[in-house]
Amino acid sequence: MRVLPDSEYQARVERMQAKLKEHGLDGLLAHSHEADFANVRYFSDYWPIFESTGVLIPAEGEPTLLIGPESEAFALDRSKIKRVRKMMEYRESAEPDYPGVKVATFPEVIAETFAKPPKKIGIAGYSILPVPVYESIKAALPDAEFVNANKLLAELKMKKTENEIALLKEGFRVSAIAMDAVLAGIKAGMTELEVVGIAQGAMYANCAEYEAHPLYVLSGPNSRHAISRPTHRVIQEGEVVQLNIGARVGGYSPSIGLPYLVGDVTEDVIKATKYGLDTHEKTIELMKPGVLASDIAKAIEEFMIAGGYGDNYLYGPCHGLGMLEVEAPWIEKDSDYRLEPGMTYQVDTFFQMENYGFRWEQGVLITDNGAVRLADWDLRANWEKACLKK
Amino acid sequence: MRVLPDSEYQARVERMQAKLKEHGLDGLLAHSHEADFANVRYFSDYWPIFESTGVLIPAEGEPTLLIGPESEAFALDRSKIKRVRKMMEYRESAEPDYPGVKVATFPEVIAETFAKPPKKIGIAGYSILPVPVYESIKAALPDAEFVNANKLLAELKMKKTENEIALLKEGFRVSAIAMDAVLAGIKAGMTELEVVGIAQGAMYANCAEYEAHPLYVLSGPNSRHAISRPTHRVIQEGEVVQLNIGARVGGYSPSIGLPYLVGDVTEDVIKATKYGLDTHEKTIELMKPGVLASDIAKAIEEFMIAGGYGDNYLYGPCHGLGMLEVEAPWIEKDSDYRLEPGMTYQVDTFFQMENYGFRWEQGVLITDNGAVRLADWDLRANWEKACLKK
Repeated sequence: MRVLPDSEYQARVERMQAKLKEHGLDGLLAHSHEADFANVRYFSDYWPIFESTGVLIPAEGEPTLLIGPESEAFALDRSKIKRVRKMMEYRESAEPDYPGVKVATFPEVIAETFAKPPKKIGIAGYSILPVPVYESIKAALPDAEFVNANKLLAELKMKKTENEIALLKEGFRVSAIAMDAVLAGIKAGMTELEVVGIAQGAMYANCAEYEAHPLYVLSGPNSRHAISRPTHRVIQEGEVVQLNIGARVGGYSPSIGLPYLVGDVTEDVIKATKYGLDTHEKTIELMKPGVLASDIAKAIEEFMIAGGYGDNYLYGPCHGLGMLEVEAPWIEKDSDYRLEPGMTYQVDTFFQMENYGFRWEQGVLITDNGAVRLADWDLRANWEKACLKK
Repeated sequence: MRVLPDSEYQARVERMQAKLKEHGLDGLLAHSHEADFANVRYFSDYWPIFESTGVLIPAEGEPTLLIGPESEAFALDRSKIKRVRKMMEYRESAEPDYPGVKVATFPEVIAETFAKPPKKIGIAGYSILPVPVYESIKAALPDAEFVNANKLLAELKMKKTENEIALLKEGFRVSAIAMDAVLAGIKAGMTELEVVGIAQGAMYANCAEYEAHPLYVLSGPNSRHAISRPTHRVIQEGEVVQLNIGARVGGYSPSIGLPYLVGDVTEDVIKATKYGLDTHEKTIELMKPGVLASDIAKAIEEFMIAGGYGDNYLYGPCHGLGMLEVEAPWIEKDSDYRLEPGMTYQVDTFFQMENYGFRWEQGVLITDNGAVRLADWDLRANWEKACLKK
């Protein structure tokens, strides 16, 4: 499977509407842009470029997709939501004028979408909602109350359907092909970005729709970065390269991470990366339904302390996985919820050392019997083959 | 050249400070996110991923880079602005908690950046500024006035330096290599996204840092889209494929566009695409310093009407080119300014036909002697070779 069936989008709108009613909300305004695309794509499959986008969902009735002035033909062809309206609020950030282009206003769109003026609206993507969108909808509904509804949408997304799990597995299949290509091609003397190109070529040749995230090929001191971008730095013998390679399929964004060891590395690097892999596998063992999330984070920090790596713990050992490679829920020391079947996580084991860093990462699905790996690709065996048996 | 010299970033901050004083502003807050990265990168070279970012520039003194809680090691290594502060306002949109991470607040950052509380602040990237950032800085400065300063930053960027032009030319060199690879590899039976992979592989192997924009490989009916994304659609014999291939180098985002004709196309397609290329070349001829921009747009619409393509004109014939592939200034029928040496444009000739569409696109620099092509790659000759002489 490369795309979700249309029925899934309709079901999501209906599930959101039930949630809106349950929480006394008359509607939801979700916001997305090119990089942070999930809030709107979840309901519509629409994924903007250059411009931004919103979806306005009434507690009862049909939703409206809100787009920028230049995307009409694209959005009408792609969106599963059939009422599509162009608005200046969603134009490019360079603020073009669009002489002669007829656009809709929030009063018009609200009148089309709601049977009567809404009094309380939830906002999903509140922390990326642009000021002009917010001011414009507030001016159109001066008496309405607006509340952050990020958590409502996160709850809706948290347990995956069979179709979503199939897309995640397909994404891992393609990510593994790209990782195999990287492990076969990477060598000292190449730049980090050249290695990115190897992964990109393999991903698109095998049905990816995009990278799951800007790919990490972070060498030497750059491997210390928890978040980063690849550079023109030339990879050197004896270094660690932090690899995270992820292919997006049907809107789902899995990723595989491992530390590539370039030629002969020091014994303490081998010891640390091996202990990192033990920590990673220990995390997966602990991820059983019913377990309190914070207990996993605490146990993993203790495991790292026991190995002598207590100072190298930077953040909790897992984050949710879905349309974004990082989404709710997290597994941190303050995560006060219990794991449930249907949740999907990236197990993200990051060690920040003094002069380098590394990440072990793969996806799992929580089932009645514990965490099941989503990639049919043995992280330990493939790493040992590529990095140890020389 | 693959990157700008550090001195250029410092000079930009100083030029912005002169502009702030000229306009009676005490400071500038610029905003960027992963996809819309230019406002902040222009001053700092910092380009976030997952999180967003801001830069706070006082009319006098040193600026501060504002980042999300997870990017510290990355930002300290990359940013040309040396004072870097982590803030919750710039975290990921999924709103993680970050237990134990110490972050700065706007009152603290303002006190560090300004000698006395600013009274009037300009905002660059106003249309992407998130509500929580805006509410937070307003709460920290309840008596200050905030104004949209997008135009100020656009003025600063409009005329390019020699270093910027060198990066644009290098970007076009890499884009042309990728387009050559696409023209050599594309054929009926491939999906649009497989063709994207060919371009990606070539770009990264030749020193791109990223794609200049999501690459356009839009076949058949998808070629009607002015803005779009490639899909899993299989390319068919007899179709037009709208190609726009662009490689980002050192933060600059040029692109080359042409209509690929798959095998035997109808005579009217050949006639229309050839007339499109004539329109494109006519536009470049008209782009002389001192010419009123609106006169060019009007002349091009008339040229299209004269050829029988008046109904196929969708928007003006050029847009500015820089860090973003689309930036100010535009050339539209209401563009009331004169072209000046140092300005760079994408000449973007789009024909939206009934069942297909196509775009001719390349970059030019305005010089004393007229518009000079930035790509050392003959659009007409290469297209005729790939699409007509079979």
